[in-house]
Amino acid sequence: MSFSHAHPLKISEEFSPKEWFRSLQETITQEIEKIDAEIDHPNFNPGQFEFTEWHRREDNQEGDFGGGRIAVMRKGRVFEKAGVAFADVKGNFPKEFAKQIPGCTDSTEFTATGISLVFHPRNPYVPIVHMNTRFITTKGRSWFGGGADLTPVMPFEEDTAFFHHAMKEVCDTYDKKAYTEFKEWCDEYFYIKHRGETRGVGGIFYDYLFVEGDNFNDLFAFTKDVGLQFLRAYAAIARRRYHHAYGDEEQHAQFIKRSRYAEFNLVYDRGIKFGLNTNGNIDAMFMSLPPLCGWE
Amino acid sequence: MSFSHAHPLKISEEFSPKEWFRSLQETITQEIEKIDAEIDHPNFNPGQFEFTEWHRREDNQEGDFGGGRIAVMRKGRVFEKAGVAFADVKGNFPKEFAKQIPGCTDSTEFTATGISLVFHPRNPYVPIVHMNTRFITTKGRSWFGGGADLTPVMPFEEDTAFFHHAMKEVCDTYDKKAYTEFKEWCDEYFYIKHRGETRGVGGIFYDYLFVEGDNFNDLFAFTKDVGLQFLRAYAAIARRRYHHAYGDEEQHAQFIKRSRYAEFNLVYDRGIKFGLNTNGNIDAMFMSLPPLCGWE
Repeated sequence: MSFSHAHPLKISEEFSPKEWFRSLQETITQEIEKIDAEIDHPNFNPGQFEFTEWHRREDNQEGDFGGGRIAVMRKGRVFEKAGVAFADVKGNFPKEFAKQIPGCTDSTEFTATGISLVFHPRNPYVPIVHMNTRFITTKGRSWFGGGADLTPVMPFEEDTAFFHHAMKEVCDTYDKKAYTEFKEWCDEYFYIKHRGETRGVGGIFYDYLFVEGDNFNDLFAFTKDVGLQFLRAYAAIARRRYHHAYGDEEQHAQFIKRSRYAEFNLVYDRGIKFGLNTNGNIDAMFMSLPPLCGWE
Repeated sequence: MSFSHAHPLKISEEFSPKEWFRSLQETITQEIEKIDAEIDHPNFNPGQFEFTEWHRREDNQEGDFGGGRIAVMRKGRVFEKAGVAFADVKGNFPKEFAKQIPGCTDSTEFTATGISLVFHPRNPYVPIVHMNTRFITTKGRSWFGGGADLTPVMPFEEDTAFFHHAMKEVCDTYDKKAYTEFKEWCDEYFYIKHRGETRGVGGIFYDYLFVEGDNFNDLFAFTKDVGLQFLRAYAAIARRRYHHAYGDEEQHAQFIKRSRYAEFNLVYDRGIKFGLNTNGNIDAMFMSLPPLCGWE
């Protein structure tokens, strides 16, 4: 199993992290639109992403600025809701929050750029998926973080193994020891403690890959690979399952799984906590929340 | 507007707080079953509450014990989901959490008993509602807390005024200054900060009514009145609206409102934080979450 014959996903080598994340948003949304148009549906047209640019108020007292671009597909054929958010923001962490952040001893200033996505497919046999890669700088440090993880409603061992393998492949190009660590971190992080269950079947999660010496290019290359490899792997899984027949029972299981997803994101998610602590954009933060879900 | 002619809701005067909360659960569930059977519905039978007793493991290392009884009506005619939880638990707060709790300087031990309910009506014209009253003791202090608040999807000024008036009436019997304070506290507490909006139209919220000198009976009497007055007022509002015709648009507004409700509860709610910090019963804690909701 290898992705060497996958169709080429190319983005300029010259790009800075923020340019690259913004460009990746286009690459991903195009591929998702393509997938969405591949099946028939009696009630829905092929989905299209709507892009919304947002800007932080530059005159607020925290001195926040920057903005982002949210891309959301609603009511597609394969995807009931698919959100891909790009952000590039500067600001100051609240003092208490800054204490937990590397490099914030002398200043609460930060810059953050990244891409974050969650897809909620219509068909319960197509897994929910999440990917995020980001580059953060504070006065004293700068680092990359990210990850990708799969949340099937109706799990297939084959898909899980395929996704894990794809993630291992990309980690191995960066550091042969990375995969084991990043996979464990993922299982730990996406754990719904109060329910004693993981959010999904895992993937990878990593943070604090600090820029030190001349490693910037390696870390950035790894970040890029995670984004593209995720897309190749998920596209393959979605295509494998999007024709699967389903009924009320699977739909019900999907609503429950989605509510667990919302629970995790609202109670534990670091990205949402980060957003709530930094006047984040609500639409971007909550883009991951399911279109329709239920706790019963 | 007065409730003096409302039908009598009587519970023994002799009861301790925990006996009273448990008994109130029966009074409320009976009244809600009655309301649910008053309308016709082509697809649903009159709803009945299912009661589930739960017990904390007595052998866990925190020395937790006690338990509770959850009553849930599902798929009723008026109520799509109605949950009423009674709990009576003892345990130890996690050390960090205990620092914020009155009377926990020397010991992290606590007892907590109370009733908590949330109703999610089927008809978007019948408001969502929440009520909670509780009695907490720690080594050094004991206090009552509680409140009731209304979350209409389609607000009627008349209902809002009626509910506020009912809450004022009960506060006035306790302390003429209480209502203003408890109403403001409610608006402050049920505020979805990240959205800049309140969860609903308010009601009352109070906490730390400390038992001091000989005021136990007054505080307990107020607690009882809140529970019964809430029921009278809400029953009247539900009956006023449960025949209202509605369509897809109102249903959609309801799903959105319910998702805001879930957001508040998962991100901010004190009861849920308390539960997450004290090995609380998941079913009881998350009983308030909507049967079906959506972020789109």
